[in-house]
Amino acid sequence: MARSPTTIRRLPEKAVNDRAVIDAILDEGYVCHVAYLIDSRPVVIPTLYVRDGDTCLLHGSTASGIAGAARRGSPLSVAVTLVDGLVVARSGFESSVNYRSVVIHGHGAVLSGNAHERALDLMVEGLIPGRLADIRPPTDIELRQTAVVALPIESVSAKVSTGPPEDDPADFGTGVWAGVVPVTTTYGEPDPAPDLEPDLQVPDYLRSYRRS
Amino acid sequence: MARSPTTIRRLPEKAVNDRAVIDAILDEGYVCHVAYLIDSRPVVIPTLYVRDGDTCLLHGSTASGIAGAARRGSPLSVAVTLVDGLVVARSGFESSVNYRSVVIHGHGAVLSGNAHERALDLMVEGLIPGRLADIRPPTDIELRQTAVVALPIESVSAKVSTGPPEDDPADFGTGVWAGVVPVTTTYGEPDPAPDLEPDLQVPDYLRSYRRS
Repeated sequence: MARSPTTIRRLPEKAVNDRAVIDAILDEGYVCHVAYLIDSRPVVIPTLYVRDGDTCLLHGSTASGIAGAARRGSPLSVAVTLVDGLVVARSGFESSVNYRSVVIHGHGAVLSGNAHERALDLMVEGLIPGRLADIRPPTDIELRQTAVVALPIESVSAKVSTGPPEDDPADFGTGVWAGVVPVTTTYGEPDPAPDLEPDLQVPDYLRSYRRS
Repeated sequence: MARSPTTIRRLPEKAVNDRAVIDAILDEGYVCHVAYLIDSRPVVIPTLYVRDGDTCLLHGSTASGIAGAARRGSPLSVAVTLVDGLVVARSGFESSVNYRSVVIHGHGAVLSGNAHERALDLMVEGLIPGRLADIRPPTDIELRQTAVVALPIESVSAKVSTGPPEDDPADFGTGVWAGVVPVTTTYGEPDPAPDLEPDLQVPDYLRSYRRS
């Protein structure tokens, strides 16, 4: 049956400037999207990151576009987005997603020497706390193939959307269900590599893995 | 105890050009990151999207940067990333994330008239299949406040990283656990809005909600 079209609201923008909120979002995430310029065009790619105090450390290969942009002094834009729920409103216009996001703008610096090695350690521990103590240090070849770009967390903003739908009161009582479908990220039972020694136990830091 | 630093590999790049794979990634996701230019600087923000055949429909407000960039003829870059697992390798260098991502480059067009209204319907159904039949059509004011930007899925690439760690054989048998921690997105029990009629049942399309 034909029906009239409806609409869905854009992600609501509830700006937050509280640095503790910003840091909590950055620390819960580990994949960011980095935008940089190639020939004056924007390019966005996902990569791993970790927060180090007032700096966001972005992971890349030595030849990656992120590292190249940082070397050229070209600006970066980085977004981290965590989705918490589907907001099912009585109208499409008020329907949206509950989320927390941070966007950072600035110029990155490719780290070298001890700062580079320390940043890679932080990457490992940021992704899996406790892991660093279990694994060997990198080889020189591995170090040369890996770049970390440090981006100051200075020009930064967060947006947080939470809670139930904010429907127009004219839509109340119309028999249309409204609410939120919670969205969570689940970390499952660790799956051993096929070439693993059969008697090796899963480390506790993986059994109890969580990010929030 | 002091120890030498380690490293973590960048997200591996296993390029995929299979359009069926690309479409499956785009259809499982619903939040993308859009990069565009403001004063020759890149800006990246999250927004909702839906695939419509060979077009990616990006959601924004009429005043949003995405719509503005499209109107100016400024290029866009859009990334969709789904994380499937933490790759826990015997070295930091081989540690990474299993993921599927799509990046689209191109110029967007702000839709109007029937195409705009149809796109908003697709947004609703793309986020929650079955929802469109339950809700009222948008008002003229709602339509005017909402913009949809259509981006052709032409200059597009995907990257897929899957499977166990690919450790250096020199690291085998060193007593270090290796494997994958599965990452899944879970949609929970729908939570009714506080102002909902108490006898309203949760629709079946929400009870059984899943994306893959």
